[in-house]
Amino acid sequence: MEDNKIIVAITQGDINGVGYEVILKTFDNPMMLDLCTPMVYGSPKVAAYHRKAMDLNTNFTIVNSAADADSEKLNVVTCTADEVKVDFGKADAEAAKAASDALQKVVEEYHDHLVDVLVTAPVNHQTLCSDAFPFHTQHGYLEQAIGEGCKSLAIYVKDNFRMASATGNMPLREVPAALTPELLKERLEAFAASLRTDFGIDAPRIAVLSLNPRKADAFDSEEEYCIRPVIAEEARQGILCFGPFAVDEFMGREDYLHYDGVLAMYHDQGLAVFNTLSQEEGVVYTAGLPLVRTAPIYDAKYEVVGKGMMDEASFRQAIYLALDIYRQRERERVAHANPLRKQYYDRRDDSDKLKQMNTNTEDEL
Amino acid sequence: MEDNKIIVAITQGDINGVGYEVILKTFDNPMMLDLCTPMVYGSPKVAAYHRKAMDLNTNFTIVNSAADADSEKLNVVTCTADEVKVDFGKADAEAAKAASDALQKVVEEYHDHLVDVLVTAPVNHQTLCSDAFPFHTQHGYLEQAIGEGCKSLAIYVKDNFRMASATGNMPLREVPAALTPELLKERLEAFAASLRTDFGIDAPRIAVLSLNPRKADAFDSEEEYCIRPVIAEEARQGILCFGPFAVDEFMGREDYLHYDGVLAMYHDQGLAVFNTLSQEEGVVYTAGLPLVRTAPIYDAKYEVVGKGMMDEASFRQAIYLALDIYRQRERERVAHANPLRKQYYDRRDDSDKLKQMNTNTEDEL
Repeated sequence: MEDNKIIVAITQGDINGVGYEVILKTFDNPMMLDLCTPMVYGSPKVAAYHRKAMDLNTNFTIVNSAADADSEKLNVVTCTADEVKVDFGKADAEAAKAASDALQKVVEEYHDHLVDVLVTAPVNHQTLCSDAFPFHTQHGYLEQAIGEGCKSLAIYVKDNFRMASATGNMPLREVPAALTPELLKERLEAFAASLRTDFGIDAPRIAVLSLNPRKADAFDSEEEYCIRPVIAEEARQGILCFGPFAVDEFMGREDYLHYDGVLAMYHDQGLAVFNTLSQEEGVVYTAGLPLVRTAPIYDAKYEVVGKGMMDEASFRQAIYLALDIYRQRERERVAHANPLRKQYYDRRDDSDKLKQMNTNTEDEL
Repeated sequence: MEDNKIIVAITQGDINGVGYEVILKTFDNPMMLDLCTPMVYGSPKVAAYHRKAMDLNTNFTIVNSAADADSEKLNVVTCTADEVKVDFGKADAEAAKAASDALQKVVEEYHDHLVDVLVTAPVNHQTLCSDAFPFHTQHGYLEQAIGEGCKSLAIYVKDNFRMASATGNMPLREVPAALTPELLKERLEAFAASLRTDFGIDAPRIAVLSLNPRKADAFDSEEEYCIRPVIAEEARQGILCFGPFAVDEFMGREDYLHYDGVLAMYHDQGLAVFNTLSQEEGVVYTAGLPLVRTAPIYDAKYEVVGKGMMDEASFRQAIYLALDIYRQRERERVAHANPLRKQYYDRRDDSDKLKQMNTNTEDEL
């Protein structure tokens, strides 16, 4: 692209959900096209159906691939057969297949270097998994398809409040056993790395929450034998991490305002607090993948589909965040692409002459 | 009292904590004395020490008991030896003893029918328990001392947001086993009863949260074999309870605005969300006891003692709430004190004469 606009791949998500509503509403504003070149991976027919049902006016153009993108338009790439049936608010396999097909097409185009960032519209996690798409979550698929062996970390973002969870979405009774020092270390390091490279915070301060309530944080608790030792060790390694803090006090005192990131110990601990603060205007960012991927925080929201009631703010924020992170990564890349050689004085040499480290020869220090 | 003002017993709490600061600041406003007759159970010397340290001007009068209360003044009853040493921010047994002594004195006066409601200043839960006071919490002691066999339920209140927890303050790993149908039923009924009689809500609607995150609410989960059956059974018995709702969605959508009460499944689930919303302006009410008892939500806050930084809003709200609940209970008592006899027509009798049920004779229906 001559104009250097970032190409944003957008998957249609579950076609019986609110995906098209928030996509079309977002790009109803022509200013959005000044910021990026949006590519919707979906179906022009389905898009038109949603548009008509909600009396929206957003225009789009149909292309075959991001290679043919019109940088002044909302582009739609056909990934779904024209005869697919849309049934607002219905959980069915066809709607889920439309979501996974779009995602798989984006991955293809990513491998061809045609798209820069990915914003996914919401899916229905109950129907997403199938024989053809054996994943329960979109990030699970992306991790395998483009992760290059890296693990992803979901970071929930609302303004300067960034929250991640040490353990994933699992039954509560499995959490204490799942919370191992190795896992906590891995998540803490991944979180710190993302805050540095993706959010441009040189020395991110991370607050670690405690697993147990304040008064139950006793001698043989997970705090003592897992969380505190990990914090101490990581702090020695230069990660500015603090805690563990009891979540109720931490939130009640607004202590989160003093940190660049908050690491919860389990899904609901983080998400309950995050959603209470963000009121569904939050965005989730899948850190750790080579492709920047963001998404609004809600699911397909079958209960309001087709009514035109959805606020697109969260989806627009997801696009903004993806663009911000992409640009930050570019800055990092450029800044580190051509580093100065390390220089040194040779002690054996009285000449005061500065020598360059030559990493290709044997006199390497 | 001729003037019928409600007598509010106030315990001094931990004397090295922020108790006196919020008490004195609250009653610095003379309007508060129009609402109630405050009785501080503590020490005039300690009160004067805090007052001087923070340059406050609140006046008080020293009395021996609530029987001698001056209804135009802030009264202080001496429960602590004059030679006690105050050491701002220091956790020690003497400061804790001052807190428990005050509480025990209030219970004495309550048994003599001298006080109407109780508002407790914050204590340090780490030091509270001793040989002379074998309790880790103030409500634990009150339950035993005046509970008359009833169990108490902590209800966290901020405006119209009322939250209780099914399980108490315990390590997270013990929560799933502690959450039994019997316990849940008991808590749900206690919560509904309090919302009716203490908050004056005729048909309270209660939202029940789920224990597990949304996607992990599976076939053999606690939701299936415990929470859903209890909700169904209680609903049949006339309690308007709904759920279980995943906490993140429930809070994100602001669904809590539609309910009179929210029952969390464990301490941190409820408190994290409550504190995020209330920002330490919340109040905790100990429901289920014959004596109305409220308290601000924070602990002794050693880190800010003596600096004059505390906002007394939460403590004042605790007093307001105690007064509101006391008046509501009075209304309930008066309304039910002298019910009309049930009347009926005798079917065997053609006279159309209304007969009164006579519960003392054998022709009772």
